[in-house]
Amino acid sequence: DQPLLVIAGPCQLESLDHAQMIAGVMAEACAAAGAQYVFKASYDKANRTSLSGRRGMGMEAGLKVLETVRASGIPVLTDVHDIAQAREAAKVVDVIQIPAFLCRQTDLLLAAGETGAVVNIKKGQFLAPWDMANVAEKVASTGNENILLTERGASFGYNTLVTDMRSLPIMARTGYPVIMDATHSVQQPGGLGGSSGGQREFAPVMARAAVSLGIAGVFIETHEAPDTAPSDGPNMIPLDKMAALIASLMAFDRLAKADPLHV
Amino acid sequence: DQPLLVIAGPCQLESLDHAQMIAGVMAEACAAAGAQYVFKASYDKANRTSLSGRRGMGMEAGLKVLETVRASGIPVLTDVHDIAQAREAAKVVDVIQIPAFLCRQTDLLLAAGETGAVVNIKKGQFLAPWDMANVAEKVASTGNENILLTERGASFGYNTLVTDMRSLPIMARTGYPVIMDATHSVQQPGGLGGSSGGQREFAPVMARAAVSLGIAGVFIETHEAPDTAPSDGPNMIPLDKMAALIASLMAFDRLAKADPLHV
Amino acid sequence: DQPLLVIAGPCQLESLDHAQMIAGVMAEACAAAGAQYVFKASYDKANRTSLSGRRGMGMEAGLKVLETVRASGIPVLTDVHDIAQAREAAKVVDVIQIPAFLCRQTDLLLAAGETGAVVNIKKGQFLAPWDMANVAEKVASTGNENILLTERGASFGYNTLVTDMRSLPIMARTGYPVIMDATHSVQQPGGLGGSSGGQREFAPVMARAAVSLGIAGVFIETHEAPDTAPSDGPNMIPLDKMAALIASLMAFDRLAKADPLHV
Amino acid sequence: DQPLLVIAGPCQLESLDHAQMIAGVMAEACAAAGAQYVFKASYDKANRTSLSGRRGMGMEAGLKVLETVRASGIPVLTDVHDIAQAREAAKVVDVIQIPAFLCRQTDLLLAAGETGAVVNIKKGQFLAPWDMANVAEKVASTGNENILLTERGASFGYNTLVTDMRSLPIMARTGYPVIMDATHSVQQPGGLGGSSGGQREFAPVMARAAVSLGIAGVFIETHEAPDTAPSDGPNMIPLDKMAALIASLMAFDRLAKADPLHV
Repeated sequence: DQPLLVIAGPCQLESLDHAQMIAGVMAEACAAAGAQYVFKASYDKANRTSLSGRRGMGMEAGLKVLETVRASGIPVLTDVHDIAQAREAAKVVDVIQIPAFLCRQTDLLLAAGETGAVVNIKKGQFLAPWDMANVAEKVASTGNENILLTERGASFGYNTLVTDMRSLPIMARTGYPVIMDATHSVQQPGGLGGSSGGQREFAPVMARAAVSLGIAGVFIETHEAPDTAPSDGPNMIPLDKMAALIASLMAFDRLAKADPLHV
Repeated sequence: DQPLLVIAGPCQLESLDHAQMIAGVMAEACAAAGAQYVFKASYDKANRTSLSGRRGMGMEAGLKVLETVRASGIPVLTDVHDIAQAREAAKVVDVIQIPAFLCRQTDLLLAAGETGAVVNIKKGQFLAPWDMANVAEKVASTGNENILLTERGASFGYNTLVTDMRSLPIMARTGYPVIMDATHSVQQPGGLGGSSGGQREFAPVMARAAVSLGIAGVFIETHEAPDTAPSDGPNMIPLDKMAALIASLMAFDRLAKADPLHV
Repeated sequence: DQPLLVIAGPCQLESLDHAQMIAGVMAEACAAAGAQYVFKASYDKANRTSLSGRRGMGMEAGLKVLETVRASGIPVLTDVHDIAQAREAAKVVDVIQIPAFLCRQTDLLLAAGETGAVVNIKKGQFLAPWDMANVAEKVASTGNENILLTERGASFGYNTLVTDMRSLPIMARTGYPVIMDATHSVQQPGGLGGSSGGQREFAPVMARAAVSLGIAGVFIETHEAPDTAPSDGPNMIPLDKMAALIASLMAFDRLAKADPLHV
Repeated sequence: DQPLLVIAGPCQLESLDHAQMIAGVMAEACAAAGAQYVFKASYDKANRTSLSGRRGMGMEAGLKVLETVRASGIPVLTDVHDIAQAREAAKVVDVIQIPAFLCRQTDLLLAAGETGAVVNIKKGQFLAPWDMANVAEKVASTGNENILLTERGASFGYNTLVTDMRSLPIMARTGYPVIMDATHSVQQPGGLGGSSGGQREFAPVMARAAVSLGIAGVFIETHEAPDTAPSDGPNMIPLDKMAALIASLMAFDRLAKADPLHV
């Protein structure tokens, strides 16, 4: 088993300097702790709660920033929203990500698979974990089996998500690596009326519980000043707490991988 | 208040003859009962549970069929999945529909609004009814206020939907007409493993309960032989039962509109 | 089919005068509208959210009040919380009610059945509608088939209930009359921290949707001044609105019973 | 911080020999692993799904068995269903337990508190974790603060429970020790029609995820032959797997308690 993969970065790209700063801090923290690292950021927030939410720098500018980060030797991930974006993004990044709301869009999954990039599929808030086998099969039908499956919570009443820890071993039965998204799973979708709320304080709870089960990786959004970040501030973890969090998670990762659950 | 609007047709287009046959039967049933009628059919099922599900005849052929139906004097509705489709479909149909999974995709909502067509937005299974105000505002920001909001159930545990009747008056507070989708709300998403199950027998229950609240319309999928239909058979209502259902619903519609609820 | 049964009264007994006043107003309203009437009130609120919530006048005093109301010719219902109470209450009232939280307590159900009184069982917020067949069977095993089954909402995330209209015809398959509790189904359990919140404005919505399906009866808590009532104020309907509500529901009841759904 | 408390035993008492056998195996496994141990068994299953489910040996016989187990130096826990039982059981056992369905019954909580025994309160499937502060306060109002709070899953659609890991730190804010019930949380209530189903294979998943958060203890039902046990067989863990499970959990417990989360 590989050591824990940490996919981390800001919710949205803000500037090249900002991306490089966060990527640098995170790469160092992961190296120190023995974790693998992938930088994550979005060039477009395509489904904000309300029209007035900030969307980001756009694909063209964003991919240039990601290309620069990658040139420094750090693998990068970004999310795509249509077929054309999947093709463009795959030229520049290591991992393209299918957003949860779009995880059943057959053509997008096929196009993503055809790029040959690693495809990280977020599980829809409206799906059961076993439904992800059919979703992954759409990508795999292209011959591309570089697939990651990410848990980010399921709808639980209104404006609330819940994470069922059983979903992690259930999705692992597909044979694909399973990732826990520790920050979106503590979102309160639409919970602030015009934007989503979140419970940042519980992100380390979700991450640790999931890592203890021996999953492949965690996905964590982070920012040096979450309270003024352009999106997802309520659930992002402050950047200056990430090194300690990663180090702590690595201890659970080693223990979990030395003592695998058989489900 | 207008009499009940009935949006009805097969889940997916099969042929011109088939579309004309169903549109004809339904138009006659609605006229006899005093209901308004819009023919509904999809040219592409873009998010089937599994890759092997049949998707339909495609946009170009499908829009031709819809154009022919419309030429006979029957208004038509179809669903669109990206910006280009919204623009093409709006040239041919009266109502373009935003699928539930896509109801938060800002660019699609803006493009739909800009066509000037009526836009029917299905409420996502992952949204609270009050969240739809922000969704509608994305369309309305284009200056197009010809908006319909459709309830089709909310996620309730795994592979199950539940319809909260409160969502109908809550969505009506936006001022836009509210539609009850009586057949998708009794879907069991992914419930058959490789496809969705459904509880056809409860569709008239959902329709009647909703109509009694004085809503603007119902959305019902129907087929002459649901058990062999290419999609959504488990929840479609047999075509030969539709005339009686519409007549029954119209009695509740008249009573409800003569005695409006004040919520 | 019988005309609609209306079970209505204050959440908790306050005094003999108060009970007689509400019973009188309701009996008159039901008679005028052609509905059947049963007076409902509790002598003890045994499961308040917090210890400081007011519990009521106690069994002995409460049963005396109910006995007096009944002597005026109005049938009465009250809820019981243990075997001894079931036996005592059944001597005085027409209907004993099993609270939702207690609907799986086998001994209480058996004791209730053995009294020979009508037994109204509230469906637990944690049960599926089909689970109520096993619950009713516990009572029926005593030879007492005078059973009513009441829907009052299912847990939906935290501090929220949702009512699945399918539950009404599903429970009706048992052959026992089905009641819709229109005021507890709009409770927000624990939603005010130290007590439950509620959405009084939606109680008529739940009542009308359910009555349109042809159910046997509705359960509605009412008070002349809900905002100062000792319990459940947020979801009770003001007494001065009840006559109009009952009259409105009777129109839907007649229409529904003339046009039964076959589920 | 104390080492992990393991509350474990069969769902229902079968005989003195059986109880002693299981208590002996478990005590040895816990001692070997450095865990604390409390024997758990029920003398009456008071809320079986259906009337035909086996209920157990009854209070009088059951308490004698528990007394004998306790005389061998092993602390014991049993659940109580009314005030009289609380008083009787508290004479014999160390911990009396309030079943989840009964966790809002004020008089039972007060009576349990007044016994002076440790009171373990299972969180109702219909409650939010923060609602348990009001529940615990009912017991604490008696002056007895020897309270444990146990997570056993929340209602999630029909016949399904989900465990929200956030509930553990949320309940811990009360200051009372928090226990994870790893076997009831994987029940499928009523899922087999006449009895509850379960997913035994996920019980170690729930236990490990929870223990990694630094909780006080786990609750696990076990049996030497779960498939023929009189109740809860589908979710009990085979006795011969318990020693390895406890040893594994203790490794996570030590790591978690050396690195506490601050929520």
